[in-house]
Amino acid sequence: MRVSELVDASGLPLATIKYYLREGLLMPGEATSATQSKYGDQHVERLVLIKALTGVGLPIGRIRTVLQLIEHPDSSLVETLGRAISELPPYLDGGDASEYPRARAAMGKLGQVYDPRFAAVAQLERALQSAEDVGIPMTDERLEVYGRAIRRIAEYDLALMPETTDAAVEYAVLGTAIYEPIMTALRRLAHQDIASTTPEPKNVSERQDR
Amino acid sequence: MRVSELVDASGLPLATIKYYLREGLLMPGEATSATQSKYGDQHVERLVLIKALTGVGLPIGRIRTVLQLIEHPDSSLVETLGRAISELPPYLDGGDASEYPRARAAMGKLGQVYDPRFAAVAQLERALQSAEDVGIPMTDERLEVYGRAIRRIAEYDLALMPETTDAAVEYAVLGTAIYEPIMTALRRLAHQDIASTTPEPKNVSERQDR
Repeated sequence: MRVSELVDASGLPLATIKYYLREGLLMPGEATSATQSKYGDQHVERLVLIKALTGVGLPIGRIRTVLQLIEHPDSSLVETLGRAISELPPYLDGGDASEYPRARAAMGKLGQVYDPRFAAVAQLERALQSAEDVGIPMTDERLEVYGRAIRRIAEYDLALMPETTDAAVEYAVLGTAIYEPIMTALRRLAHQDIASTTPEPKNVSERQDR
Repeated sequence: MRVSELVDASGLPLATIKYYLREGLLMPGEATSATQSKYGDQHVERLVLIKALTGVGLPIGRIRTVLQLIEHPDSSLVETLGRAISELPPYLDGGDASEYPRARAAMGKLGQVYDPRFAAVAQLERALQSAEDVGIPMTDERLEVYGRAIRRIAEYDLALMPETTDAAVEYAVLGTAIYEPIMTALRRLAHQDIASTTPEPKNVSERQDR
């Protein structure tokens, strides 16, 4: 197809497609003349993926990294996925495990292996630190409840992961970005449902009993 | 105590405390002379709370609303909590339930009651729409897995909610803001752990068997 047909197939403006070509995010088409190129399904698929990645808020530089990981994955799938997921916000420095005492302790209690180079460890450390700062620190009991529930979700996610590396990277990056706000919205709505269906006077009478 | 002692007790600069006084976020002290006032523990507690709310990223206007809900709660605790939580990001318009077909269907399948005026419904709708857009739409099965796991977390959260309304509002707002990044970091780390402990060649051999 011609570049004008790519516009129709991807729903992206011509200027945007040309920009992605210049930036190397979209692979060049097959030149058919000095001024024209031919494009195929893989170009449409790539544009749809770039559109999805911009849609979850990734800047161009980070999209480039994800695409490079899809084209040149590390020999280890876990390493490739870890590096790809680290391109998602929040952006914190990775580093040495010794800098993350809270995250390390939490992972130890949950019996999980982790790679301190990947951003999620720093994220967890900062979030646990914030919890302490505002006076609602993570307890062992809460960690167990959260850890077990989240693990069920994660197991389900991974059971559906595509088998090819490129599809797996795409699924992991988009699935992580997209399902995080779904999780947090579901938690807020579950709070609302549970609070609504618990009789309110209960707390009051308990307080009066004291 | 004097305002200079409030600085030590709260860890906030004098200029910040004066700003909160001017803005009405901090209640005035008891005037002891034309230029001096006396402050008590409730002033320190209020400053610590404002600090925590700014720490989770709330702008002053939204902190004011949360504080007003603490001081003048609605007669319904659920209503008060719902309005307070709606002051947290992401900021989307609430509205009529008919505008949220995906969220409404999801809540129906989970058998949950919800109030469409509160922000979480619009959040869920937008997140479910994004999931469709990137080609990983929510399925009934995934909704059940996520919904059940998140509900356990929410039940645990509510079981620990303080009994007085003001403490409950504080716990709900801070707990929602603080534990959301913990949940998302735990999910990313659970993915990493499960992927690391699953033998990688499995996918490859399955693929070759076909």
